[in-house]
Amino acid sequence: MYLRPTFEEIKDSANRIRVYIHRTPILHSHNIDRIFSAEIYFKCENFQKVGSFKPRGAINAILQLSRESLKQGVATHSSGNFAQAIAYSAQILNIRATIIMPRTSPKVKVEAVRSYGADIIFCEPTLEARESTLNDFVFKSGATFVHPYNDYNVIAGQGTAALELLENNPALDIIIAPIGGGGLISGTAIASKAMNPSIEVIAGEPKRADDAYRSIEAGYIIPSVNPQTIADGLLTSLGDMTFPIIQSLVNRILTVSEDAIISAMKLIFTRLKIIVEPSSAVSLATLLEYPEHFIDKKVGIILSGGNVDIDNLPWYRKTN
Amino acid sequence: MYLRPTFEEIKDSANRIRVYIHRTPILHSHNIDRIFSAEIYFKCENFQKVGSFKPRGAINAILQLSRESLKQGVATHSSGNFAQAIAYSAQILNIRATIIMPRTSPKVKVEAVRSYGADIIFCEPTLEARESTLNDFVFKSGATFVHPYNDYNVIAGQGTAALELLENNPALDIIIAPIGGGGLISGTAIASKAMNPSIEVIAGEPKRADDAYRSIEAGYIIPSVNPQTIADGLLTSLGDMTFPIIQSLVNRILTVSEDAIISAMKLIFTRLKIIVEPSSAVSLATLLEYPEHFIDKKVGIILSGGNVDIDNLPWYRKTN
Repeated sequence: MYLRPTFEEIKDSANRIRVYIHRTPILHSHNIDRIFSAEIYFKCENFQKVGSFKPRGAINAILQLSRESLKQGVATHSSGNFAQAIAYSAQILNIRATIIMPRTSPKVKVEAVRSYGADIIFCEPTLEARESTLNDFVFKSGATFVHPYNDYNVIAGQGTAALELLENNPALDIIIAPIGGGGLISGTAIASKAMNPSIEVIAGEPKRADDAYRSIEAGYIIPSVNPQTIADGLLTSLGDMTFPIIQSLVNRILTVSEDAIISAMKLIFTRLKIIVEPSSAVSLATLLEYPEHFIDKKVGIILSGGNVDIDNLPWYRKTN
Repeated sequence: MYLRPTFEEIKDSANRIRVYIHRTPILHSHNIDRIFSAEIYFKCENFQKVGSFKPRGAINAILQLSRESLKQGVATHSSGNFAQAIAYSAQILNIRATIIMPRTSPKVKVEAVRSYGADIIFCEPTLEARESTLNDFVFKSGATFVHPYNDYNVIAGQGTAALELLENNPALDIIIAPIGGGGLISGTAIASKAMNPSIEVIAGEPKRADDAYRSIEAGYIIPSVNPQTIADGLLTSLGDMTFPIIQSLVNRILTVSEDAIISAMKLIFTRLKIIVEPSSAVSLATLLEYPEHFIDKKVGIILSGGNVDIDNLPWYRKTN
């Protein structure tokens, strides 16, 4: 089966976006290694521009638009990290960006998008309203819609994080990334398998938003319906571009409890001394849930982002 | 006036301890620069071994003991980062360490010290009890007491963090470190003034533990009496070795409110995406309290450590 993007496209993407993104550090902790009897390397995309891996794909997609398209600007619908990524990318590339956001979005996220100079159109907080508002805007303005994950160029951009990790640590036995819409894990899987065919690619998914796990079991995409998890970056459903990549290249999807996500997040805070968002902690949570699988293995983990509300950390909440 | 340690001693210390410590990263954030209209570089000792700068001085002091002294082991009294630093240093240098800790020390700190294989002797939670218990133990065992800050070799070791910062960023206008007993700021001042005589050296101190500020005003050491601040690494009084260095080389001591410490800590969490303890945030808090002083300046900040109880972050507490 011929999958896109290809590894060549990911390598080209890495060259294309290099000047606009950080090559993020890879951290390692003897304490965490001892806890899991494994050798674990953390690729820290929480230190990426705008605090998550998302600008890799956003910039890569925008840089491949024609000059005419660039003049009309870009648009997307998101209340999370992809909104900030598109806004940031448009700012540094000097084009217009319009973000469709639910009118219930937290003020801090609205302000973040606005701080990069993007226009915001508010809509009702439903997927239908987001899509119809976006379609209306794109039709009237001629802006290009950049999808958060169901886009070859976005997937190729997201794969550059794993590319960098494996350039530094080629001998990994396992690589883990979280799965939501599947953009990050798809790019990760393509890059990793190309660079190290024997590597095991694992997707971490919250049990409370396990639509990807169920989709792979079923053999077709099962939409995510109103999932309730603290991993708020992983609420979306797979796309028709990410699904076949995951079917072909991801060795297993391991699901994790909310408690495991919180424990993993606290381990990362206290041992690595860095801030990550709950979605980032899902990868390390797979080691807490399935410890025997990782013993004596060299494990690479992509920490996807660090945009968490520090006034509302999950372990201070009365209920999960 | 002839001050010790000399800059030569600090450079020798850097070579002596190099293989045992991390050369910690220096972080920079355009967002934080914009907030303060300054160019700010953060030396991240929260990523140092055991989560603070303290092993620099501890290892440096231990490495200069005679073979006979090393056989008898080392001892100190501390419930904080210096306890862990001595325990860690003794472990990697394969000697015995005994830590006198108040019996009221948080369990997590006791466990941390124990995890490095140190012996612990508990005492009543008063300075008198700590000192008398330590003196008894040293008398009976022949162990060498390593003072947390009132020791030339400890001060010289602590100065290596500023040495590294200025090696990477020689053109700083200002360097800031927090002040408690004065070990870190003393080493910082000696290294900084030697490498860049025009640099301004600023000590950040909590208003609620402002004994250093008052001591410099008075011209003699005023002890710190039962201070109440969230910056729990800065409760101690100056020593007779640190006081003259601070008098001679620290340009000013800026005091900061508890609110400014919390705001600075939150800025570091959200913008740099790293975990620091309240004592670390005191340096950036000086920019919040005295913003006009730093406009258009190149500022180096030593983030002293990252050992904070994430289950009891100060902005979640009912009272400060």
